[in-house]
Amino acid sequence: MAYLSTPDHLTVTTGPITGSSKVYLPQDSGARVPMRRVHLATGDHLDLYDTSGPYTDSAAVIDLEAGLPARAGVVADRGTQLQRARAGEITAEMVFVAAREGVDPELVRDEVARGRAVIPANHHHLEAEPMIIGKAFAVKVNANIGNSAVTSSIAEEVDKMVWATRWGADTIMDLSTGRDIHTTREWILRNSPVPVGTVPIYQALEKVDGDPTRLTWECFRDTVIEQCEQGVDYMTVHAGVLARHIPLTVDRVTGIVSRGGSIMAAWCLAHQRESFLYTNFDELCEILARYDVTFSLGDGLRPGSIADANDAAQFAELHTLGELTQVARRHGVQVMIEGPGHVPLHKIVENVRLEEDVCDEAPFYTLGPLTTDIAPAYDHITSAIGAALIAQAGTAMLCYVTPKEHLGLPNRHDVKQGVIAYKIAAHAADLAKGHPRAQQRDDALSAARFEFRWEDQFNLSLDPDTAREYHDETLPATPAKTAHFCSMCGPKFCSMRISHHVREAYRDAIHLPVVTR
Amino acid sequence: MAYLSTPDHLTVTTGPITGSSKVYLPQDSGARVPMRRVHLATGDHLDLYDTSGPYTDSAAVIDLEAGLPARAGVVADRGTQLQRARAGEITAEMVFVAAREGVDPELVRDEVARGRAVIPANHHHLEAEPMIIGKAFAVKVNANIGNSAVTSSIAEEVDKMVWATRWGADTIMDLSTGRDIHTTREWILRNSPVPVGTVPIYQALEKVDGDPTRLTWECFRDTVIEQCEQGVDYMTVHAGVLARHIPLTVDRVTGIVSRGGSIMAAWCLAHQRESFLYTNFDELCEILARYDVTFSLGDGLRPGSIADANDAAQFAELHTLGELTQVARRHGVQVMIEGPGHVPLHKIVENVRLEEDVCDEAPFYTLGPLTTDIAPAYDHITSAIGAALIAQAGTAMLCYVTPKEHLGLPNRHDVKQGVIAYKIAAHAADLAKGHPRAQQRDDALSAARFEFRWEDQFNLSLDPDTAREYHDETLPATPAKTAHFCSMCGPKFCSMRISHHVREAYRDAIHLPVVTR
Repeated sequence: MAYLSTPDHLTVTTGPITGSSKVYLPQDSGARVPMRRVHLATGDHLDLYDTSGPYTDSAAVIDLEAGLPARAGVVADRGTQLQRARAGEITAEMVFVAAREGVDPELVRDEVARGRAVIPANHHHLEAEPMIIGKAFAVKVNANIGNSAVTSSIAEEVDKMVWATRWGADTIMDLSTGRDIHTTREWILRNSPVPVGTVPIYQALEKVDGDPTRLTWECFRDTVIEQCEQGVDYMTVHAGVLARHIPLTVDRVTGIVSRGGSIMAAWCLAHQRESFLYTNFDELCEILARYDVTFSLGDGLRPGSIADANDAAQFAELHTLGELTQVARRHGVQVMIEGPGHVPLHKIVENVRLEEDVCDEAPFYTLGPLTTDIAPAYDHITSAIGAALIAQAGTAMLCYVTPKEHLGLPNRHDVKQGVIAYKIAAHAADLAKGHPRAQQRDDALSAARFEFRWEDQFNLSLDPDTAREYHDETLPATPAKTAHFCSMCGPKFCSMRISHHVREAYRDAIHLPVVTR
Repeated sequence: MAYLSTPDHLTVTTGPITGSSKVYLPQDSGARVPMRRVHLATGDHLDLYDTSGPYTDSAAVIDLEAGLPARAGVVADRGTQLQRARAGEITAEMVFVAAREGVDPELVRDEVARGRAVIPANHHHLEAEPMIIGKAFAVKVNANIGNSAVTSSIAEEVDKMVWATRWGADTIMDLSTGRDIHTTREWILRNSPVPVGTVPIYQALEKVDGDPTRLTWECFRDTVIEQCEQGVDYMTVHAGVLARHIPLTVDRVTGIVSRGGSIMAAWCLAHQRESFLYTNFDELCEILARYDVTFSLGDGLRPGSIADANDAAQFAELHTLGELTQVARRHGVQVMIEGPGHVPLHKIVENVRLEEDVCDEAPFYTLGPLTTDIAPAYDHITSAIGAALIAQAGTAMLCYVTPKEHLGLPNRHDVKQGVIAYKIAAHAADLAKGHPRAQQRDDALSAARFEFRWEDQFNLSLDPDTAREYHDETLPATPAKTAHFCSMCGPKFCSMRISHHVREAYRDAIHLPVVTR
């Protein structure tokens, strides 16, 4: 990055999350598998999955201009993770993610070989720590960042990337559409501890001055190669939006709400031709296979309103994505499938079942879905509801939605709100799916709560700083951190306090009366 | 209220919600059934269910010392709504709620007669506008307010009541446990446009200086009568916590987390006797029947952690509540049943099915449930997820949870966050259940969104002020309110803008190519 001038005011948040420290699981390979270790007042600790990279390691020296250190031991000449998994090889990346997830490496290999999981790890993005997306593993969360022509800067977007991963984002998508797309992405890639996704059509469109009708396959292809070379780990490609699908969208309440989808529909209509993404899909696969870039097959016709959910346009595109999944896999390219959008509660599970059926269990990656249209400014909540439910049904990664959705570009505060809401949804699904490590954390926090270990309760939570701040609003003094009550009920009405007395009394009085009313 | 001195600094929020005005549906009876009318830029309007009372009527004169005007035409000498419904009578209250819900009054009468719905309307609380709680109707939201010994005042709690109903709370529970319980409740009752619930054991405990072992049936009974006389519409009574249930709680991760439940368990153990609430339940029914106060049979053994969900203690109590439901109904008393608590996603629906089975379809009224324990400071979200799902399954009313849950007493801001999160959950469930009026609002908002009617989009939302504020953070100028983009994507990348062009182009080009890849 020596050729890049440092953006003005570029700073990011560093240092451990309150109450935690960074530890690395010992590996035979010498790989450094990071965990967030929460230190408890009891002397015990709990190790949690950690997405935050070196930024939360108090021993790390962060140099944004130099970028993060490269991962060692990367093999780039034996094909994709999918190809190597099929050949029976357990790669270094598979060993790494197995340690992070607490599962057998052979499970990882098998899931990747079957196409039920992907490890998005471009051979040119060695700064990222490997992770896996698949329904047999912990549900993952993606955070969208990136500027628009109206607002933001490189410094703000790099800061958002570090901030989002601090709070638990498993991947980042750089959706920049404004100035300096290439440079913004370079800063993000070189400093991101997580895989980075993009939507290459956005940059291609900038190259033709924003006129969709001037797009060409060649322009798009060259943009994809540029981004592959830079190290983008997965790319959204809206190759499932076909000319014949467009009539299905005309009577919708909200038409086409995907940017990529609307761009490709406009191109097809202007040229009276089939989508160049679809007609050149084999060549695209060959390019992605060279770098092991993962497809995120975009849902360009996803519903943008409750009224349009699960309609003919959406499902027609999904069937095309199923066809393209098979093409990509023949080329050895890893594939995940993007999903809606806006879907009412009773239509959510059908989306997962159909995707698994049509796309042969490729990992599903959904935006929300929002379960109602009526709460702009609270769409992190409308969609966390849908996200929890769709993840429980088998969705592997959730794309977050921030409070600013439909209203404007999210800022740093919005990014955190979106990430936390989605960590909740993902974790709720992990609990429901019986993920082995999920309930440990709930049990540890609830035990701390019942024993009035306030600091432990804060530190085990998704956001120790805010939990502590809220508690301290009414009871800021240090003794309150061991007090057997809080301001909600006060000392006399604390059920947990009384409950302890009940337990003590019960030990002395086990012959309880049975009275019939 | 002339005998009450006005609390210091007592002010409440008045005036219409932005973009709306108060209208009253014309009724043959002369009753004033309120709606919130949203005025659209198209010249149309949409009328929405309105819980906010006279406070949002620009023509109303608010005098907090005088209280709200009393409802006319109330019949207090012919028994409860349940008794009258069974006798085939369609009461004035039934007509009123039918108009609010947009349903046939006979449906209301039938649901009340079967015990599947309740109309909590104490003969002494004429300030409230009648509403109905039952799964055949729109899902309702309750907001808990009330001070604790540690913090808050009468003025703050009256303000919270008006504030909560402004944003859509259908009922209020005054859970005050600190000083001035009676006086606080009087101010709330006389000024509340919605039914008010309480947990009488809290005031009874204050009368015995906070020592559960000193509680007596007589003290409790007199407190109930005092509150019935004042006008409380529904009361939580933890009569299902029996001595024999206590051993089932001893090995729980979080013991007994209901305040009422822990108080009664402590009493049973101290006296080695069965709960006086259970043994005197018939007399309690006779009292409530005189005023038409509705039972909210409390879940004193609800799970307080994911680990304790759906356990033997919880379900043993539920079976006792089923027995008490039948007793109450024999006395003509309306009944709803309280439910959990903390429940993982995959155990939620079982709660509804069992409650309906055991309690003969009495309306279910649940606290959340929280779907994970790990997010203190965000429990409005952890629980809105569970609330949406349990409401979709048939829960009639949702008790909100605020961001301060587990951490401290909610303030005004927290109350709004909790109410909005729960309006989202309730509405998402209404959509999934096919409530006839629910989708109208989503469709109206989405149409406004697609047509770039920004003001309409804001005004149709649950919180017009915050939606507008978020939009204006990056594009504050007036022309942006009709612009065909926002700062999220900027003008060139607005999918909806492109989508309009696609529609126009489609009209001229209906012969689209079909190309095989």
